[in-house]
Amino acid sequence: MNQPLGKDFTLPGEAGYEQLTLELAEKWGADVIRDSDGTKLSDEILRAGYGIYSTICIIRQHNAFAAQHPDSQQQTFLCSDPVTATESSVRIQPLDGYFDQQFELNDSPEALAYWQVFDRTANREVPREHWAYREGEVTVSPCQPWHEYTVSFLAWRIWEEINMYNHTTNHWQSEHLRQLDPRHPLAWEYLQNWLRDWCRANPDTTVVRFTSLFYNFVWIFGSDPRRRTRYCDWASYDFTVSPAALKAFEQAYGYALTAEDFINQGKLQVTHMPPTARKRDYMDFMQRFVAEKAKALVDIVHQYGKKAYVFYDDSWVGMEPYGPYFPTVGFDGLIKCIFSGFECRLCAGADVPTHEIRLHPYLFPVGLGGLPTFSAGGQPEKDAMQYWRSARRALMRQTVDRIGLGGYLHLTEGYPAFVDAIQRIGGEFRRIKALQKQAGPYTLPLRVAVLHTWGKLRPWTLSGHFHETYMHPLIHVNEALSGLPVDVRFLSFEDAAAGGLAGCDVVINAGRAGDAWSGGDAWKNDALVEAITAFVHRGGAFIGVGEPTAAPGYATYFRLANVLGVDLDTGARVCHGKWTFDVEKEPAIFLANNALGQKKDVYLTDGRARVLAECGGAPQLTVHPFGAGMGIYLSDFHFTPESARMLLDLMLYAAGQMENALYLTDDARAEAAFYPDSRTLVAVNNSEDTVRTRIRLPGEALDVTLTPMETRFVAL
Amino acid sequence: MNQPLGKDFTLPGEAGYEQLTLELAEKWGADVIRDSDGTKLSDEILRAGYGIYSTICIIRQHNAFAAQHPDSQQQTFLCSDPVTATESSVRIQPLDGYFDQQFELNDSPEALAYWQVFDRTANREVPREHWAYREGEVTVSPCQPWHEYTVSFLAWRIWEEINMYNHTTNHWQSEHLRQLDPRHPLAWEYLQNWLRDWCRANPDTTVVRFTSLFYNFVWIFGSDPRRRTRYCDWASYDFTVSPAALKAFEQAYGYALTAEDFINQGKLQVTHMPPTARKRDYMDFMQRFVAEKAKALVDIVHQYGKKAYVFYDDSWVGMEPYGPYFPTVGFDGLIKCIFSGFECRLCAGADVPTHEIRLHPYLFPVGLGGLPTFSAGGQPEKDAMQYWRSARRALMRQTVDRIGLGGYLHLTEGYPAFVDAIQRIGGEFRRIKALQKQAGPYTLPLRVAVLHTWGKLRPWTLSGHFHETYMHPLIHVNEALSGLPVDVRFLSFEDAAAGGLAGCDVVINAGRAGDAWSGGDAWKNDALVEAITAFVHRGGAFIGVGEPTAAPGYATYFRLANVLGVDLDTGARVCHGKWTFDVEKEPAIFLANNALGQKKDVYLTDGRARVLAECGGAPQLTVHPFGAGMGIYLSDFHFTPESARMLLDLMLYAAGQMENALYLTDDARAEAAFYPDSRTLVAVNNSEDTVRTRIRLPGEALDVTLTPMETRFVAL
Repeated sequence: MNQPLGKDFTLPGEAGYEQLTLELAEKWGADVIRDSDGTKLSDEILRAGYGIYSTICIIRQHNAFAAQHPDSQQQTFLCSDPVTATESSVRIQPLDGYFDQQFELNDSPEALAYWQVFDRTANREVPREHWAYREGEVTVSPCQPWHEYTVSFLAWRIWEEINMYNHTTNHWQSEHLRQLDPRHPLAWEYLQNWLRDWCRANPDTTVVRFTSLFYNFVWIFGSDPRRRTRYCDWASYDFTVSPAALKAFEQAYGYALTAEDFINQGKLQVTHMPPTARKRDYMDFMQRFVAEKAKALVDIVHQYGKKAYVFYDDSWVGMEPYGPYFPTVGFDGLIKCIFSGFECRLCAGADVPTHEIRLHPYLFPVGLGGLPTFSAGGQPEKDAMQYWRSARRALMRQTVDRIGLGGYLHLTEGYPAFVDAIQRIGGEFRRIKALQKQAGPYTLPLRVAVLHTWGKLRPWTLSGHFHETYMHPLIHVNEALSGLPVDVRFLSFEDAAAGGLAGCDVVINAGRAGDAWSGGDAWKNDALVEAITAFVHRGGAFIGVGEPTAAPGYATYFRLANVLGVDLDTGARVCHGKWTFDVEKEPAIFLANNALGQKKDVYLTDGRARVLAECGGAPQLTVHPFGAGMGIYLSDFHFTPESARMLLDLMLYAAGQMENALYLTDDARAEAAFYPDSRTLVAVNNSEDTVRTRIRLPGEALDVTLTPMETRFVAL
Repeated sequence: MNQPLGKDFTLPGEAGYEQLTLELAEKWGADVIRDSDGTKLSDEILRAGYGIYSTICIIRQHNAFAAQHPDSQQQTFLCSDPVTATESSVRIQPLDGYFDQQFELNDSPEALAYWQVFDRTANREVPREHWAYREGEVTVSPCQPWHEYTVSFLAWRIWEEINMYNHTTNHWQSEHLRQLDPRHPLAWEYLQNWLRDWCRANPDTTVVRFTSLFYNFVWIFGSDPRRRTRYCDWASYDFTVSPAALKAFEQAYGYALTAEDFINQGKLQVTHMPPTARKRDYMDFMQRFVAEKAKALVDIVHQYGKKAYVFYDDSWVGMEPYGPYFPTVGFDGLIKCIFSGFECRLCAGADVPTHEIRLHPYLFPVGLGGLPTFSAGGQPEKDAMQYWRSARRALMRQTVDRIGLGGYLHLTEGYPAFVDAIQRIGGEFRRIKALQKQAGPYTLPLRVAVLHTWGKLRPWTLSGHFHETYMHPLIHVNEALSGLPVDVRFLSFEDAAAGGLAGCDVVINAGRAGDAWSGGDAWKNDALVEAITAFVHRGGAFIGVGEPTAAPGYATYFRLANVLGVDLDTGARVCHGKWTFDVEKEPAIFLANNALGQKKDVYLTDGRARVLAECGGAPQLTVHPFGAGMGIYLSDFHFTPESARMLLDLMLYAAGQMENALYLTDDARAEAAFYPDSRTLVAVNNSEDTVRTRIRLPGEALDVTLTPMETRFVAL
């Protein structure tokens, strides 16, 4: 196992620290040096023989142009806070409550044409003749006393949101950066020329790293520090809007969108909720636009003999890596900063030549959540190993091509344990990657379909990072799956209803009633219900988490209550007697009780489900035979390495594969992957304990003792 | 305070224990002796100069007639358990899963005409030509594979439910009693004659106590002991149904009801859920029928010189004491068994000459829930004082006329502490009652309207006793209100929308989204929203508990989120930033934190609500200025004497009356009532601690020290 491994590490260089840069490049096996937001590379670094990544945020840093062409800036629809009418007229200042450094009213005639006033009590738009706008204020007259009114309006976004965040959070003092809309013809001309100039001016750059493209995820600030963030959705499209976009849409799709299509009663179109058909059209429209413009930029980069990578964060809206138009852009690489295993899989599976992950922690004094990293009290080597634990199990299933870091390299001085940890991580990554050069790891014959609204468009991720979506059980499921030895695919409800379950063994639906992950009204499609019912009856497994398949208006709240053997009482069954039950033990299944919820109102439908865990008299984990298959219900699911094993055990149990499953540990704290081509087993300890575990091999067993967090490579 | 007090106590006599009977009658101040289910009165007791109550259950104990006329028995609609079709036809045994000693299929031609088969997956009735019934089985063909099917059918109820309960729970072995439907012409003739005969045969009886009338509350047993009770609803009307009733309804209302009007997707028409318009019609129809038949029976009783009291429990369906037809029956008295204060108020306020309560514990070896009462380990005197604590505070606000006990008197032997406790309770009751002979107690100028679907029809109660409805916050609110020095009324949503809030200071809405207590679709009526919004803006207080005013489809989930200053995120606002807040202290308000819930997803709407309690970052108790009034939100409400004080304080705070409120204790464990006519203050200690408290009088204060559970009468 001492063959030379490739260099595939991207190091953040830093001018003024040339010796450190080159020293760590050697130690960590770097072949590429990058700049970061706030750092420069000196000539000494640029000419040291490394590949050079240069970071650009194409729509930012053009304040002079923006000042000359204020109408080239980006916009959004906003909705005023509701105002209760107490008389027959009511006055509303639309921007009240919004951060005035982020937004400016767009009250141009073409924008005003898109404004709307709503009586939110009556759920009715107020006719134009009943409201008037003048100098920042809308007057509704006549109105209905005691009703609530809102104004939906267009606003200019006058501060690029990532820059705004760094100013307000990290106390940056530099000039507020603005952002251009590539849909504006002059801006688009300007941006292309700027990129050409940039390429000419940076001959040492081998890879242009786009951060990311044009439109930031939606991040709306409020005026009051008690609610600085009014809204934040990593996958929403609100920040792409403009009268020009709306007109182009109307021309392309034959119908006009209104402010309400975005404002949605003030709730906006949250990615976690099922989209309207109109939103789907608009997303498709915008994805095509983003891909087309991105391709033009990539072509420029290629003309200058450089590669174009895209960093999948911040201004990525419309360039979903699994969207239909992403491959047409021609990116040479996708870079994903990762905290979690699911992000590694998201990156690794994208249709692009090079997949690179950016490890955490970044080389910043303070990490996410404000805790110290490279400053007093920080333990960056511990942080690095925590994140590596999540990434490692995912990379063992499907590797990426490269890893790297970001931030200020000089901060590593005084943290030799961190430097060593990254060296270790780099070494382990290269061995895992090498094992997959020929073929992937052994996979159990378990083909798992994760079923939700977005299907293939949003595999693995929900909307943002784990810590932003932790309240959704699906992100925990995805994180668990990211490192399990099973085949995983993501299906939409339309896919499932149209035969998409063929070739699947397990279907998972995990979410809250009505949300995009559970499915909401998608479950009103009888064909979907029939497809899954038949699938399970013929031997498949259906795993529901939280409020799966929930839809109001039917005999049961869970549409597949008959398959699951449990349902949720929303109040109408409060007088119905509930089946009593004993909590049963199923030795074959590792039980991670603390991964389950404390969900009230769950009850057994036909009394035949076996209850493996309960809380306050309500079942929390059940297995229910249905025909030749099985329905499994979990009240909630919180990811830990141990709960991932519970999920795997449940799937194996449902599929009747428990007996013969190979390469599994007998301790849930440890996991293993086997690479048949090289006859190598990789066993990892996900815990900080020493773990002695037996691993089932064909016809025999292997006993290993793993030190805390160890990665063990065993030739078989 | 030593004036002679009246005798107003009903004692359960027992043959064979004549001396005990007369001795306790003397000690407890009885003027009436009653029999009980299972006891007889001997001649010695009957002729001792006491009034005599005799218990009859008019529709029961006629098995010979029922055997001769099986079609005179009562019926119900039932719905089969759903069956998933796996082929193009499916067979269903309708009674599968039901208790075969309670039910028998009614497959007579006139009954079969009412049967229905439903495809519950598609929410569609299956046309008659696609199903057939034969020998206890329905075959649906063709059907849609993988859909669920149910059969709705009529069943005879062949075992009177209270008798069935006593057999199955208390191991009674006697003959199963059947029950007759007074709508059956022969049965009706028979019952009237039977009553005449009975009156003639019982000349010593002064009061015929009906237990209760004709139709039992709905109690459906299952075949499996793991789910013996399939359904239990104390206020539901399912057990009144029959083809004859349905035909009479159709004639009277001009349209026909179907099985589905009762079955409601298998959920039945739970009293805790808003009724359909058809259910309201049917209830009115049945109430008129019950009142008419009851009047005929009362007239018979009166013809024999006896009085007719009705016991409000068991077979009371259709004779709601606050219903429009109840006064027309002509009952001389209403007897209510009580565990709680709200039941005392329910009894005390009914439009009937005599109000009597039956105290707990009953003289049975074992109490509700199976714990010992008059048997080894029992402490009946403690139980009696616990129930008395609840009753006392309600009776201090509005007294009843009489009290009494039920059960087997001989069981009191060996429990002298119980005998003393009842003597004490009787004495306290008589003094409280005497204080109210002239006029009621001083009431704070706080007029409180409790707002729910049933309004005046169901004041105080929900559906059954406290221990059956504890999961509904409203029963806790009602229990708190039952002893508070405020004016209480109950309004329906229709009342409130039509000016019913005039003369109110506080409106309370407490329930779960969609239920009858919160209101469900009633909140889609803008006029209701306007009425309450205006009411609060002009100075009123609105108190919402749990999921008040909730209705889906609007900008906010709580329709009065603007008034309350809080709303509940059902998932669509998961990306919306929430207002941060500090938990504030409001010294004027007694805080009973453990009375509140642990409700997730509550958030501040405009950031102006003051948060007095929180859980996991979500507000649980808030006060929100709105115009000249206030919206108050409680995440939940659990009754304790202390939390009752919190509720009172919140109402006083909202109404700006905190400063001057009279006759309040400064310790939440104690309460007081002042009777202006007799210038007497009654102070009670609701706790088992000694409590020293100051009571605010006009211009002065009174300090009292109360022993545990003490009732103190103070002349001012």
